[in-house]
Amino acid sequence: MIGAGRMGQAHANVLTRLSGVQVTWVMDVNAQNAERVAAQLGARASTSLEEVLSQPDVQAVLISTPAGTHADTIEAAARAGKAIFSEKPLAKTLEDAVRAVRAVEAAGVPNQVGFQRRYDPAYVSAKARIDAGDLGRLEGFRAVGRDPEPPPTEYLVGAGGLLVDMGGHDLDLARFMVGEVAEVRAIGGAIVKPELAQHGEHDTAVALLRFENGALGTLEVGLRTAYGYDIRTEVLGERGRLHIERDKQPDLSVYDAAGVHHDRPRHFSERFAEAYAAEITAFAEGVQAGRTLTPSVRDALHSLRLALAAQHALVSGETVRVQEFGREWMEQVESA
Amino acid sequence: MIGAGRMGQAHANVLTRLSGVQVTWVMDVNAQNAERVAAQLGARASTSLEEVLSQPDVQAVLISTPAGTHADTIEAAARAGKAIFSEKPLAKTLEDAVRAVRAVEAAGVPNQVGFQRRYDPAYVSAKARIDAGDLGRLEGFRAVGRDPEPPPTEYLVGAGGLLVDMGGHDLDLARFMVGEVAEVRAIGGAIVKPELAQHGEHDTAVALLRFENGALGTLEVGLRTAYGYDIRTEVLGERGRLHIERDKQPDLSVYDAAGVHHDRPRHFSERFAEAYAAEITAFAEGVQAGRTLTPSVRDALHSLRLALAAQHALVSGETVRVQEFGREWMEQVESA
Amino acid sequence: MIGAGRMGQAHANVLTRLSGVQVTWVMDVNAQNAERVAAQLGARASTSLEEVLSQPDVQAVLISTPAGTHADTIEAAARAGKAIFSEKPLAKTLEDAVRAVRAVEAAGVPNQVGFQRRYDPAYVSAKARIDAGDLGRLEGFRAVGRDPEPPPTEYLVGAGGLLVDMGGHDLDLARFMVGEVAEVRAIGGAIVKPELAQHGEHDTAVALLRFENGALGTLEVGLRTAYGYDIRTEVLGERGRLHIERDKQPDLSVYDAAGVHHDRPRHFSERFAEAYAAEITAFAEGVQAGRTLTPSVRDALHSLRLALAAQHALVSGETVRVQEFGREWMEQVESA
Amino acid sequence: MIGAGRMGQAHANVLTRLSGVQVTWVMDVNAQNAERVAAQLGARASTSLEEVLSQPDVQAVLISTPAGTHADTIEAAARAGKAIFSEKPLAKTLEDAVRAVRAVEAAGVPNQVGFQRRYDPAYVSAKARIDAGDLGRLEGFRAVGRDPEPPPTEYLVGAGGLLVDMGGHDLDLARFMVGEVAEVRAIGGAIVKPELAQHGEHDTAVALLRFENGALGTLEVGLRTAYGYDIRTEVLGERGRLHIERDKQPDLSVYDAAGVHHDRPRHFSERFAEAYAAEITAFAEGVQAGRTLTPSVRDALHSLRLALAAQHALVSGETVRVQEFGREWMEQVESA
Repeated sequence: MIGAGRMGQAHANVLTRLSGVQVTWVMDVNAQNAERVAAQLGARASTSLEEVLSQPDVQAVLISTPAGTHADTIEAAARAGKAIFSEKPLAKTLEDAVRAVRAVEAAGVPNQVGFQRRYDPAYVSAKARIDAGDLGRLEGFRAVGRDPEPPPTEYLVGAGGLLVDMGGHDLDLARFMVGEVAEVRAIGGAIVKPELAQHGEHDTAVALLRFENGALGTLEVGLRTAYGYDIRTEVLGERGRLHIERDKQPDLSVYDAAGVHHDRPRHFSERFAEAYAAEITAFAEGVQAGRTLTPSVRDALHSLRLALAAQHALVSGETVRVQEFGREWMEQVESA
Repeated sequence: MIGAGRMGQAHANVLTRLSGVQVTWVMDVNAQNAERVAAQLGARASTSLEEVLSQPDVQAVLISTPAGTHADTIEAAARAGKAIFSEKPLAKTLEDAVRAVRAVEAAGVPNQVGFQRRYDPAYVSAKARIDAGDLGRLEGFRAVGRDPEPPPTEYLVGAGGLLVDMGGHDLDLARFMVGEVAEVRAIGGAIVKPELAQHGEHDTAVALLRFENGALGTLEVGLRTAYGYDIRTEVLGERGRLHIERDKQPDLSVYDAAGVHHDRPRHFSERFAEAYAAEITAFAEGVQAGRTLTPSVRDALHSLRLALAAQHALVSGETVRVQEFGREWMEQVESA
Repeated sequence: MIGAGRMGQAHANVLTRLSGVQVTWVMDVNAQNAERVAAQLGARASTSLEEVLSQPDVQAVLISTPAGTHADTIEAAARAGKAIFSEKPLAKTLEDAVRAVRAVEAAGVPNQVGFQRRYDPAYVSAKARIDAGDLGRLEGFRAVGRDPEPPPTEYLVGAGGLLVDMGGHDLDLARFMVGEVAEVRAIGGAIVKPELAQHGEHDTAVALLRFENGALGTLEVGLRTAYGYDIRTEVLGERGRLHIERDKQPDLSVYDAAGVHHDRPRHFSERFAEAYAAEITAFAEGVQAGRTLTPSVRDALHSLRLALAAQHALVSGETVRVQEFGREWMEQVESA
Repeated sequence: MIGAGRMGQAHANVLTRLSGVQVTWVMDVNAQNAERVAAQLGARASTSLEEVLSQPDVQAVLISTPAGTHADTIEAAARAGKAIFSEKPLAKTLEDAVRAVRAVEAAGVPNQVGFQRRYDPAYVSAKARIDAGDLGRLEGFRAVGRDPEPPPTEYLVGAGGLLVDMGGHDLDLARFMVGEVAEVRAIGGAIVKPELAQHGEHDTAVALLRFENGALGTLEVGLRTAYGYDIRTEVLGERGRLHIERDKQPDLSVYDAAGVHHDRPRHFSERFAEAYAAEITAFAEGVQAGRTLTPSVRDALHSLRLALAAQHALVSGETVRVQEFGREWMEQVESA
């Protein structure tokens, strides 16, 4: 375990339940943190990435450090020959991400990036239907991603922009479900937290997507809803439509003089609990079985490129052609 | 129009929109009532049933008088050779109902009874699926019929009992959708209006139904909900289940900090508006086209027998075998 | 009645049920059409707009002619002092629309334009909640408008463009529910009917809206779904979200080995039946009672301006500022 | 762990994730079974209940043996001073159940019975609302419990009857949510497996419940649906209604030419996964913290009495008064 924060611990809880998996080291730059979590897991603690990566009994690393350190950590782990699971995004810049991908591919180590929604049962089922041709030709895509409450301004300034930090998941799904995006436009605002405007940041954005296969899409991202966590994805095809949304808690309906009422999911950890467990399980079992992991760092690189292109569209007001965005870096891996 | 009350006027509003139909006479024992409604419809008013039935230009009568007068009115109209639409129930006793059916069948006049739910689009569709064999063998039935608020105690005492007045619709649906009921048990109470107990009446009842084809069913009837009009019907078969319910108003969802909310239907006139219009249209067009009407008085007689049997089960606490209930009267029409 | 096509007849059916309303003349350029409909309604037929407008007993006109003739007909009716109900759009160009509005306002006649969704119970209820402040500050808008099947290519070429002909309803709702739009971007394609591309027309489009109050919105318009008529509108505010959609027929659920299934509305006349009746009733009763009608031709002019601006954005690829679009024409009414 | 079958292992998987809990012994009459599961859990295996109960380091036992052995096992564990979690039902007869309860209460050991639905989030929330008075006076109850497919006939014959084995959960909920039942009637059949009739067993039953507080209820139990696992519970009060049902999988809607479709839960382990984990967690943490556990064996005894009374009503056709049913045995604990 590299990074012993909330996400890392959540993943560790999943790992401890899997047979044949043992968490042997917990590394965190905060020694106390590392020791506390290591004690819980019966593992050794370290503050040194090098120390952990040099252990011959460490077969795989699970990287849950802050986004800015992902690329360097991935690169080091690849050089040490470890199997790698990293939280998204791959990096904050294309340059760093490309470097990480090249290191991973040069080392030939198993690799997976934490786009957990791809492992949510509803998305898995939707993807299978698309791949089976149930929708016929794909013609439309729509995503909504709204958090109930914005994180602190300090976090948002420097998180890489709304369409990377928050919209990155939805844009990864756009690629996963419909295909590559050719062109993106976006507008946004600082509606919830006006102070973000002075930092050039946004808390709300909407975007248009033109896919390479001709499909058209919209994306909405926001950092406030009164009514909980609001993630919706839909794919429209010539033969039907798939709509993924946890609109309400499914089991209890309350009827009274005002009508009928349902609770709603309030947090991503509630909505995607199964998906987080499934992605970690797929990683651990895939490494043991020698299966190809997904999404790979290369796949994640393309999702990052799309997210950065969308963010550039948002900031500049321009229409951004994705193939031309960051081409100098992408060529380094495409020619590889 | 025989009877110019609320229901009669609602039906008249439908009739005036149908081509080839003209409301020519409005009869009501209350002269003012008859005249007011007749004026609105451009018809003549009368307080005499005989006067109206003796008019040669009156082809059909629409009977919306109080339940206790249905049988006599039907009988008179049949003798006068008029096509007959009567509100349910056919009568308050089997004896009266049998008499009315015999008169109608002797006269050979077109006849239809106002079980409007059979004309509701959802019930029509469900029935068609059952008839097409979509459910395979029928194995279960369940009905809920709950009014939002009880009528005045004066009305309830003398309305013929909860399982006739209110449950009659649900029991008609049991026959319509699953088939004849062999046996019924029921328990009840005066939960909402305890004063009903001293009159031997109930405001809440539950019943068990064993159908002749082996299917088992439950029935719940009540006169209060805080949350509006609650009509549910389901049919279970070996290959599936049909569930009919207007659980909520379908078009507007309201999301707020407490979750997601929907309005609900509050009154039968709201839930069954289409059905009322459809049954009257079917009657008027059927009479003009010479089509067989449904449900007939004979069909309604069987529904009344079932409702009276259920009411007897409720009052007596006994298990009532429907075929044996009122056999002396039923034989008069069965041998016919 | 000016125009005796399908829409006009539908309106006439509503009118005949209203007390105090009489359809006295049916005008259509097709004499046969006019005569047939007039005969049904007990009215006189004409092929001459002048003839009808010169009748002193004609108090109001209901204009359901092809879109290109609306402005001229409105202008003539206004000059003749008649109350006016016209189908949308007001005109095909801002110039024509402005002329019609000026004529109506100069004459001071009652006027209403057929944006029927504003009269749909769900939209009425949503609007009331917004006006009551239930959502707090408005922050987002989203509309989907998808027809099940595209009309013939001949119709589409010359209908004024997808975002006017089809998107006009959704853009009117944007104004009705959230407020004026400041800026619009759009992209589109000829996905369903590739032959439209050679005419510069689209069958699919997506757009971004920035409202004057800072809210951000998306719009999706299309001319094909496999699954029926798909109209969705949502408004997001700081305190909640309103979502308007007839996702499924509400009353019948079908359960089988494959899960649970519901029918869906398939056509606009099915989804908005109540709204069409309500708008005509509001017009007829409003004229009789001397009430201010809504939406007025001036209101509809602003909706048309927005739709034309969006269409211009779609065709040009530019970001269009609505206040600057067609300013030369709009100034003629704004200074008025 | 006493009993290493499917249910026992499921519980063990939950236990291994709880801090401070260690599975030290696995007992099963099948030695191979015991050894295999023990090996997985790092525990010792035994085929002797006495051996396990004599271990001083065994603080608590989890009894997942066949129903007929529950009472003896509970009694032995109580005498050995162990905390006890037992699957339901407590026993197959009231006599045995009373003996087990007396042993547990004499020993004063912590005890809990596996009515997992009481720990399902929707039921927990419903119960809290009832206890908070949200429904006002309780007036109605309704339960449906239908399995997708019947178990083998060998199992059913000797499982204690449909209303004990299958209906026991629903009848426990009746008590949990509304209160004690005064009177029960039931009818049933062998509809799905006609061969059950010769054994006096049923695969389908419906029942009427009259509660001591006056509320009326229905119960439906069955062993086949084409459409998956169908558990519904509702409580009606003067101020509203609570409805608990997983009608469909909540996250994916599939739209096509036939309408809109959803998957449904197919198995109890899918529907109640959270509840099973929650009850075991509550037991383990409750024992450690010295909290009172629920439902206790005494509570479960009352649920068993009700289920046996209902089964007697089903078999005999009589109306059974619950307070008079098995009074000779119940008095042994009531006087205690």
